[in-house]
Amino acid sequence: MELEFLGTGAGSPAKSRNVSSVALKLLEEINEIWLFDVGEGTQHQILRTTIKPRKISKIFITHLHGDHLFGLPGFLSSRSFQGAQKNEPLVIFGPRGIADFVKTSMRVSQSKLSYPIKFVELTQDGLIFENSRFRVYAAHLNHRIECFGYRIEEKDYPGELLVDKLIAAQVPSGPLYGQLKAGKKVTLADGRVLDGRDYLGETRKGRIIAILGDTRQTPAIAKLAQNADVLVHESTFGRGEAHLAHDYYHSTCMEAAQCALRCQVKQLFLTHISARYVGIQALQLAKDASKVFPKTKVVKDFDVFTVPFPTRKRGVHS
Amino acid sequence: MELEFLGTGAGSPAKSRNVSSVALKLLEEINEIWLFDVGEGTQHQILRTTIKPRKISKIFITHLHGDHLFGLPGFLSSRSFQGAQKNEPLVIFGPRGIADFVKTSMRVSQSKLSYPIKFVELTQDGLIFENSRFRVYAAHLNHRIECFGYRIEEKDYPGELLVDKLIAAQVPSGPLYGQLKAGKKVTLADGRVLDGRDYLGETRKGRIIAILGDTRQTPAIAKLAQNADVLVHESTFGRGEAHLAHDYYHSTCMEAAQCALRCQVKQLFLTHISARYVGIQALQLAKDASKVFPKTKVVKDFDVFTVPFPTRKRGVHS
Ligand SMILES: [Zn+2]
Ligand SMILES: [Zn+2]
Repeated sequence: MELEFLGTGAGSPAKSRNVSSVALKLLEEINEIWLFDVGEGTQHQILRTTIKPRKISKIFITHLHGDHLFGLPGFLSSRSFQGAQKNEPLVIFGPRGIADFVKTSMRVSQSKLSYPIKFVELTQDGLIFENSRFRVYAAHLNHRIECFGYRIEEKDYPGELLVDKLIAAQVPSGPLYGQLKAGKKVTLADGRVLDGRDYLGETRKGRIIAILGDTRQTPAIAKLAQNADVLVHESTFGRGEAHLAHDYYHSTCMEAAQCALRCQVKQLFLTHISARYVGIQALQLAKDASKVFPKTKVVKDFDVFTVPFPTRKRGVHS
Repeated sequence: MELEFLGTGAGSPAKSRNVSSVALKLLEEINEIWLFDVGEGTQHQILRTTIKPRKISKIFITHLHGDHLFGLPGFLSSRSFQGAQKNEPLVIFGPRGIADFVKTSMRVSQSKLSYPIKFVELTQDGLIFENSRFRVYAAHLNHRIECFGYRIEEKDYPGELLVDKLIAAQVPSGPLYGQLKAGKKVTLADGRVLDGRDYLGETRKGRIIAILGDTRQTPAIAKLAQNADVLVHESTFGRGEAHLAHDYYHSTCMEAAQCALRCQVKQLFLTHISARYVGIQALQLAKDASKVFPKTKVVKDFDVFTVPFPTRKRGVHS
């Protein structure tokens, strides 16, 4: 599981930062990539990475401001042009209006895509997607227009079957191992009753990623970010600019840090960096925020981070 | 008058060529820049030039395929963000549907632009714009979807008043000079009748630029390109690929060259170069075309060309 930042700027593209997009690479887990926001030029950024557009199976749009959205029609067309198949559908989650925008763009440009798109227009907070490995939750943030943040929860990995322990207990191998692995109770031929949970290794906790859109501070953030391994938070303004941030429906680096601290996240990534902060000034955002929350980093375009497994909780049967 | 190529690729952006856009810089003439097509990432390309978005007063869209269009919403937003004023309006010419696309994009993203936009949706061939210095004509090309080419005619510069000749003829200076400069007949106090046209220098012919969209060969091209100083022609396919070009509603480099020859243009710029032609292969397109029309060049992103004044015709009163 990796996060690859494709655009880390705010508002308009700048030479050093493109507008918003971040890829959550779940290649090892489910052989898919999920994209969060698609600012103009996201497909150009992807050209400079190893990401294959056809691997992108889901797109989550936080809000419909142009710097988070206007790269979507071009990306969809190029995904088609680059050979995505009928059986490689794409699901687009986002606020109401996302389907209208995409459909108008495809209709006007007479683009015929090689794959189907399913739109999920969000209206309320809660679980929006679940498969065998992940759950995704969305919640309304507080921005000038309707805006969502996302929480991606990886389900826990069940413990491995402790084969050595079974052999030591002289349990014969066979179909019964499968039942033990599923944590069930089984009765052996010799009459012994074994509890599978006694023969399972450590449960590995799944990881939690919270990716927010543009927002003021609002209680909904805690719902999304609580105990997250990684929090991706906007930082449009710097220390001492809380009033400005509030007026423009954004956050400061300090607010993001306080939020990370409160929500007990493991790592804070600051993004959506204004063109007013270049070079050393962007580093100052991180420096200031670090005083509140040490594990803070201002991300740059093309930064890639592996999301480590949490160590905070151990499986109860280890 | 300069042409600056901002995107010279076909279909999808590539590392070396962005999708279509070319700027006609009329800064010396009327202090304006006109943009022809706005593929995705055009605003990013503009960041790497000296072009100021607020100087762009007119946009001409050839057709609504995404690679010519999808950069428009982002460009419009950034032009606003970068401080274009209420009195710096923008006129967008293009096929039917252009207003729908732009208005939907602006509505969905809740973008409020700082300047007004006027849409001119084209339906037929002919004169589409005229001011004191320029005339612009549009004509339907032959592409998979409705597509226009544009001919920009600079009006002739009237000859300078030959003051030395007037002094030699002992014509007293005064308001009467203005009438002579306008080419009128005037009667002097001593009874002499002078024809202003006898006292005017060489008329300087205006320049003609033809910028085509994607197209097969079609008679309409001659209307646009005849005697042009510069012809910007697509070259999606190479020598020997006329069938392919026809099937995909495009042209080969050879067809473009034959067209340039037939229309007696001065200079041919080949653009809309497929990603199949990289490096030396793109040069081969020019090499092949040059055998038919020597003044051929395959353009690259950020190429800038000054359009010279034609020398073919001299003012009749010189
Ligand atoms: Zn934003
Ligand atoms: Zn094209």
